Amino acid sequence: MTNKGFTLWFTGLSGAGKTTLAKRVEKEILMRGMGVELLDGDVIRTNLSKGLGFSKEDRDTNIRRIGFVCNLLERNGAVAIAAAISPYADVRREIRALHKNFVEVFTKCSLDKLTERDTKGLYKKALAGEIKGFTGVNDPYEEPENAEIVLDTEAESIEDSTNRILTYLEERGLVPAPVGGDVSAEERKAIEAKLKDLNFV
Amino acid sequence: MTNKGFTLWFTGLSGAGKTTLAKRVEKEILMRGMGVELLDGDVIRTNLSKGLGFSKEDRDTNIRRIGFVCNLLERNGAVAIAAAISPYADVRREIRALHKNFVEVFTKCSLDKLTERDTKGLYKKALAGEIKGFTGVNDPYEEPENAEIVLDTEAESIEDSTNRILTYLEERGLVPAPVGGDVSAEERKAIEAKLKDLNFV
Repeated sequence: MTNKGFTLWFTGLSGAGKTTLAKRVEKEILMRGMGVELLDGDVIRTNLSKGLGFSKEDRDTNIRRIGFVCNLLERNGAVAIAAAISPYADVRREIRALHKNFVEVFTKCSLDKLTERDTKGLYKKALAGEIKGFTGVNDPYEEPENAEIVLDTEAESIEDSTNRILTYLEERGLVPAPVGGDVSAEERKAIEAKLKDLNFV
Repeated sequence: MTNKGFTLWFTGLSGAGKTTLAKRVEKEILMRGMGVELLDGDVIRTNLSKGLGFSKEDRDTNIRRIGFVCNLLERNGAVAIAAAISPYADVRREIRALHKNFVEVFTKCSLDKLTERDTKGLYKKALAGEIKGFTGVNDPYEEPENAEIVLDTEAESIEDSTNRILTYLEERGLVPAPVGGDVSAEERKAIEAKLKDLNFV
C-alpha cells in the first residue's frame, strides 16, 4: 500500500452519475483496506455550505471550501472524494493547484439524456423556467479540458465507469489492487464496521 | 510514533492566548516529525466561515464546521488544532462526541486582565457599547467544566502553558517525546520546509 493521499474530484451536471460513481469507488477503496472520505452533496450541504446560494460567488465559495477540506485530507495521506457539480473551470484549476495528487473525473452526459432520465424532475422544471440558475440549462457548465478521466455516462455502464476509475488509480499507484485473503482479521473487522456505518451492508 | 489522530481544541475569550499557544504547539509537534493542521481564526475566516455572523446560530454553524473538519482529520490519523472562541458548551460537547481523541484546552483569563492588555483595543470598545455581541462582555461565554487542560494564561508564561500541553499529549501517547538526532535527513528537510511555509523560520 502506498499511503499516498489523493483527491478524486467528480465534476459534471446534476444526474450525470457523480454521487453514484463516487459511492461505488468509495466502497471499493474501503474494501481494499484504505480509509476514504466522501464529500458529496448531502455531506457538503449539512457540514460546509449552509447559507450559500447559487450565484457564481456562492458556488465558487462552496467549491473552494470543499477543495480546502480535500487538500487537508490529501496532504495528510488520506483519500478524499468530492462529488459536486463544480461548473467553473477556473475554480477547479485553482483547487487542482493546491494538490499534489489530484484526479479529476468528468461524468459526461448530454442534456437530452439527462432530461430524458430526469429522476428528480428538475430538468423539466428548469427547461420550463420554473427553476432559475440550474446548471446546464440556464446557468453555465464549463467542461473540463484536461480531466484525468472522462466517463461517457450516457453510454457506459456504472460497472464499467467504476472499473475505469479504479484501474486508473491502480496504475497511478494510488490504490492497491483488490485484496484477497491478505487482510488481517482486525482490518477486515474495521472495514466491515465502516461499511455498515455507510449503510453499504 | 503513535500515528493516532487527535484534535486539540482551544477555547477561551478573545486575547486569552488561544492562537499564540496553538502556534507554539503546532511548531513543537512539527519538530517532532508529525503532520499537523492548525485551524485558527485566519484560516477559518478565509476557508470555512465566509458569510457567517455572530448570532448564536451562526457561531454554532461556524464551530460545527470546524469540528467537522477536525474530525475528518482525526479519524484519518492526522492531528488537528482548532483555536476558536467556541463560547457555547453544548456545541463543544457535540463536537467532542464526534471524536475518539479530543483534548479540550481552556485558556482561562479574567475580563479585567484582558481589558488591561487589550492589544487590539476591542475590549474597551465592547465595554463602551461600540461593539455588540462581543464574547465575554455582551455575549455569553460558557466556561468548560471538563476540559482536559485548563491554563491560567493570566499567571502562567507562554512557555509553561506550551509545556503543560505537550506533557499532557506525551503522557496520553498522542505525541512522541522531543526528537534528538534520530530524524532522517529527508524528514528534517520536510519539517524545515513546512516550518518555512508557516513563517516560523
